[in-house]
Amino acid sequence: MDDRIWAWAPATVANVGPGFDVFGFAIEGAGDRVAARRRDEPGVVLVGVEGDEGRLPRDAESNTAGVAARALLEAVGETEFGIELSLEKETPLASGLGSSAASAVAAVTAVNELLSSPASLPVLLQCATEAERAACGFAPADNTAPSLLGGFVLVRGGTPPRVAQLPVPEGLSCALLHPHQQVRTEEARAVLPESVPLATAVEQWGNVAAFVAGLVQGELDLLRSSIHDAIAEPVRKANVKGFEEVSRAALDAGALGCGLSGSGPSIFALCHSPARAEEVVRAMSIALEKATDDRGDILVSPVGVAGARITTEGSSV
Amino acid sequence: MDDRIWAWAPATVANVGPGFDVFGFAIEGAGDRVAARRRDEPGVVLVGVEGDEGRLPRDAESNTAGVAARALLEAVGETEFGIELSLEKETPLASGLGSSAASAVAAVTAVNELLSSPASLPVLLQCATEAERAACGFAPADNTAPSLLGGFVLVRGGTPPRVAQLPVPEGLSCALLHPHQQVRTEEARAVLPESVPLATAVEQWGNVAAFVAGLVQGELDLLRSSIHDAIAEPVRKANVKGFEEVSRAALDAGALGCGLSGSGPSIFALCHSPARAEEVVRAMSIALEKATDDRGDILVSPVGVAGARITTEGSSV
Repeated sequence: MDDRIWAWAPATVANVGPGFDVFGFAIEGAGDRVAARRRDEPGVVLVGVEGDEGRLPRDAESNTAGVAARALLEAVGETEFGIELSLEKETPLASGLGSSAASAVAAVTAVNELLSSPASLPVLLQCATEAERAACGFAPADNTAPSLLGGFVLVRGGTPPRVAQLPVPEGLSCALLHPHQQVRTEEARAVLPESVPLATAVEQWGNVAAFVAGLVQGELDLLRSSIHDAIAEPVRKANVKGFEEVSRAALDAGALGCGLSGSGPSIFALCHSPARAEEVVRAMSIALEKATDDRGDILVSPVGVAGARITTEGSSV
Repeated sequence: MDDRIWAWAPATVANVGPGFDVFGFAIEGAGDRVAARRRDEPGVVLVGVEGDEGRLPRDAESNTAGVAARALLEAVGETEFGIELSLEKETPLASGLGSSAASAVAAVTAVNELLSSPASLPVLLQCATEAERAACGFAPADNTAPSLLGGFVLVRGGTPPRVAQLPVPEGLSCALLHPHQQVRTEEARAVLPESVPLATAVEQWGNVAAFVAGLVQGELDLLRSSIHDAIAEPVRKANVKGFEEVSRAALDAGALGCGLSGSGPSIFALCHSPARAEEVVRAMSIALEKATDDRGDILVSPVGVAGARITTEGSSV
């Protein structure tokens, strides 16, 4: 009998519009699965990683799933037993879809089921975020929080990070295009300015305010006018071939707005309905192909699906 | 018979919490009144200013009320007649309560009634904001917009400025303390940094997001956690004697949060109820007296009262 506990954690879109480092939401159709079982010896071991074409670290000390599991054992003071993990990646790596966050969140979710006294969500969030930080050098919880909790999430600093879930208008959908390019999170962060002109910062938080007001009140015009990032996107978009063309195609096809998911290269477009998102994502893919000879991978998801969960063996959701 | 049109425009609190240059709301109990009548000669004349102890410019080219009136005549192409204005100040000058904005808004509101084709609200807002800019050197419409439209307002750049009114939780009240100190808006702006560290900017727009979510959803805990300005207040509070003591007293007395109104010296505190605001404002006044031997002037108002309006002669509201 398989005594493993399986958990699934969704991929996530972060840096949504003006909400650099503060907004993120969970999507369906991509994510990571972790299986965990107790072992008699203390410590965490990673016995298998699939779906990454051999590119992720195989040792539990370096892989975010292993780091997150160990952080959780330490947080709850568990020394009686250890954990054996295996990881199945269904989130593309270095895509801007919160791949390392999904691994970390799936790991803490699975391991938590093995504890005699399960930890609280804030503790799980803290452990997953620490693990992502170990992998990426920096992690503001804007991927780990929506992956763990689901929904559209506002993240602010703190230990554990302070999180608020925001309601989302009925039907709001995300068109996602993942170009076959890779952007390393560390490098994408290195191109950011250390400081921003005050006028630019004011413009950004005016848009953040309009975005939240639009989201919570379901006012699509406010959303449409505020999905704009004056901080990261101007310096990061140069690293994503075809970004301008894809972005224009998304807007022309009726998206409310468009931007880089995380640090890219994935490009998200928010749409008022699933049907519109289907049209938009096709237009984005065609535009990418025209610009780069790559159609990329496409995905359409509601904005803010359920977060991490325990699953039965083999099932993804 | 008096053929003058009277208008009243409320004073306003701007730079609310993290919303530097983007949030403002109208208050009751302070504001400006303007009387306007047609004159046969073109142009704008100012025939009287009261309530300013002789400190404001008497010529229509320099007084914001006159500048705003002229801007409106020009905007609508009115050359057949001119305007005679008189201004009654019931907003303390250089107090951080939008005194020049109230004059400009009252002027355009009164003059608009005299036009054969009245201008739209965006045109009135643009004219009043231009006039405030002429007086203060800079004006982001975070005083003119709430004074004109009423309510709690989100302002973003543009010509005319883009404005969204945000709903306010039932009972939300403002305790206001006006110390008998003066802060010149130009000087208060000169101390601002030209740029802000990215981490500080992220903190600020995280709080902006939480503030809007709290306001729109009526979640007081989100408001309480987000009424914080990491940008202007740290450099401006040194110009307001007693600020730290008053701020502490407001929080100790149960305010949700506290900050400088506009560029100060007035200090606002947001409270969940009018009764709490009454307690808080007394505590603020006592703390100011202990620190500076001045009790200041106090005022309690709902957050976001009605905006500018035509009144009968002699009546303020």
